[in-house]
Amino acid sequence: MKTIKTQVGIIGAGPAGLTLALMLQKQGIKCVIIENRSREYVENRVRAGLLEHNTVEVFEELGVADRLHQEGLVHHGCYIAYNGITQRIDFQKHTQREVTIYGQQEVVKDLIKACLDRKIEIIFEAEATEINDFMTEEPSISFTHGGENAILNCDFVAGTDGFHGLGRKTLPKESYNEFKIEYPFSWLGILAYSKPTYDELIYAFHHEGFALASMRSEKVCRLYLQVPNDEKIENWSDEQIWTELENRLGIELDKGEIFEKGITPMRSFMIDNLQAGRLFLAGDAAHIVPPTGAKGLNLAVADVRNLAKGITDFYKNGNEDALNNYTKKCVSRVWRVQDFSNFMTYLCHKQAENGSFEQLLQKSKFDYLRMSEAYQKTIAENYVGLPFEAFE
Amino acid sequence: MKTIKTQVGIIGAGPAGLTLALMLQKQGIKCVIIENRSREYVENRVRAGLLEHNTVEVFEELGVADRLHQEGLVHHGCYIAYNGITQRIDFQKHTQREVTIYGQQEVVKDLIKACLDRKIEIIFEAEATEINDFMTEEPSISFTHGGENAILNCDFVAGTDGFHGLGRKTLPKESYNEFKIEYPFSWLGILAYSKPTYDELIYAFHHEGFALASMRSEKVCRLYLQVPNDEKIENWSDEQIWTELENRLGIELDKGEIFEKGITPMRSFMIDNLQAGRLFLAGDAAHIVPPTGAKGLNLAVADVRNLAKGITDFYKNGNEDALNNYTKKCVSRVWRVQDFSNFMTYLCHKQAENGSFEQLLQKSKFDYLRMSEAYQKTIAENYVGLPFEAFE
Repeated sequence: MKTIKTQVGIIGAGPAGLTLALMLQKQGIKCVIIENRSREYVENRVRAGLLEHNTVEVFEELGVADRLHQEGLVHHGCYIAYNGITQRIDFQKHTQREVTIYGQQEVVKDLIKACLDRKIEIIFEAEATEINDFMTEEPSISFTHGGENAILNCDFVAGTDGFHGLGRKTLPKESYNEFKIEYPFSWLGILAYSKPTYDELIYAFHHEGFALASMRSEKVCRLYLQVPNDEKIENWSDEQIWTELENRLGIELDKGEIFEKGITPMRSFMIDNLQAGRLFLAGDAAHIVPPTGAKGLNLAVADVRNLAKGITDFYKNGNEDALNNYTKKCVSRVWRVQDFSNFMTYLCHKQAENGSFEQLLQKSKFDYLRMSEAYQKTIAENYVGLPFEAFE
Repeated sequence: MKTIKTQVGIIGAGPAGLTLALMLQKQGIKCVIIENRSREYVENRVRAGLLEHNTVEVFEELGVADRLHQEGLVHHGCYIAYNGITQRIDFQKHTQREVTIYGQQEVVKDLIKACLDRKIEIIFEAEATEINDFMTEEPSISFTHGGENAILNCDFVAGTDGFHGLGRKTLPKESYNEFKIEYPFSWLGILAYSKPTYDELIYAFHHEGFALASMRSEKVCRLYLQVPNDEKIENWSDEQIWTELENRLGIELDKGEIFEKGITPMRSFMIDNLQAGRLFLAGDAAHIVPPTGAKGLNLAVADVRNLAKGITDFYKNGNEDALNNYTKKCVSRVWRVQDFSNFMTYLCHKQAENGSFEQLLQKSKFDYLRMSEAYQKTIAENYVGLPFEAFE
């Protein structure tokens, strides 16, 4: 059986795993990434598209931000609308920070290229089947590749393999509590070859449901509609989608060709322990946030930043304190992000009947938002991402 | 049958009715107040005890703030605690405003004295039984006094007679929507001859329930404990109350004689129309907020300020616009206050099981509160009272 040896074995070549590998490599620590999909697949998987200021800085430090700066769209604010009355949230004014619109698949392309340029081995189409001996100092990852069984021996295992991955399945059940909210609505999302008719994202409460106008580039729009959980995508013709988007957003759209559409449920999920022995989870493996706060990828980067620091401290100084505190360090940020994502979700979605007390209290929050710079600032500072230092 | 004639007939000698009378008298408009209780009763009825900056300014303009300034305690902040970890909310820093601790019964004493000094007639122990012809320009109030029936003829009727009063009962049902939240907890409140061992109010979330440390003066404390709705006051000895207060507040208290105790349910209530023809409601007659935001009396003063302006404009300029817009003008503030009171209630009370997702999101809001000046400011600016101009 083929056996490889490295220092850190990473399962999953998504933003978390790839960023971790680049951080470790920069410190002279060796790692190997095992990814069960093909390179082409992961480079074209459509996911998030908004990078916090923090995340961009991490990518700059890693030297992987050149294309992001060329092609990404820097946004200094966003709009929050209530039945057509719009309030801009000024990120620049309130936080002196901004966000960058840049598709996750583009991030992944940049990170993979950097990994390969820097001789970090990524084994694509390799399925991790078991994480062994992670309670000892000599863990390993069993995987299959090209029809053959193989073993990756390492000092540490990073489970950056997403919500359905082997990482969380392996973490001892008794070591964590699980938290879950299933929201009573979903997002019907489209990607279209359209020129955005709006300069910044629009989060729109509408009495028929939430809509979000986002973009991937100057030629591609990403747009969403709140729909019931049991909605079927077949029930929506492209024309109906455009009509309802224009209705809820209250603006004219460039109705280009829709080249992808689908329905995504909204979920908050997390576990409150991210480690056991030499196994560490990061990113979607440990927590899912509803996309309303645009936080998934950014939270993954915040996690691996802590993990890389811990592993580095272990190798450089023989100090395990940071590793031992890894969960604690991550989880305070995760809770903040869970709460903000939950807040944005409840603020912007239609839940209660129009005209009910609950819905009119929701309306009152929008009235207050137009009135209060402080309230605008709370949204701005969470949206662009609270500084890493705030949790240190 | 005895018949009196005035310009504005006011039902109820609480803070709303008395303040309205003083505002009108200042403009040379005549009014008579009908109050079904005795002077002694209303002057000793224990209610709220916190005056917004706005409210103090109104009382200053009316020349009824002398004793308030002598005896009231000016607070430049308050504390919000989570299981013993305390964050101060600095009103001064965030709003350049403050609040004044001064019991409602003291306010009522000052207002009654001023009314009588200024020859405003208050008929105590007079029960209003019917509001007649309020859809015409010649309304009247039927009432009984000293066993006799009487009539107060007037141009306008102000229903400032509280939640159970005749005012709202008379307002045509079809003219308004009613909104109601009954909270799943109550407040066990005490008044005690104790020296406050805290310099400002403490709103304390505790894993066994909310507690509030407030005061009425330098010798009288007002303290509250969250209890279930079906709790009986007989189940709590004075000693048990003090023990649980110290437990939840995490401080030592001066355990003086408890001279009043009772259990109050928590409720949000409002109607969205405050007027019909020549009948106008204000204060508790139109809306109840849970006491967590300390807003009831302050909202009543904001209402009657609008009403006095409208009535003055009618008599001085023959302009009915302000009167016609009375509801609209009041209700935007009422919604803001309802939302803030609801927010403070949910922030500080124990609702979900300890360790549940919901409760840990609640905890995360306290973590954020310690982290964010902007979040502190949202609480400060609502708590001291958003300026009247914000709603004009």
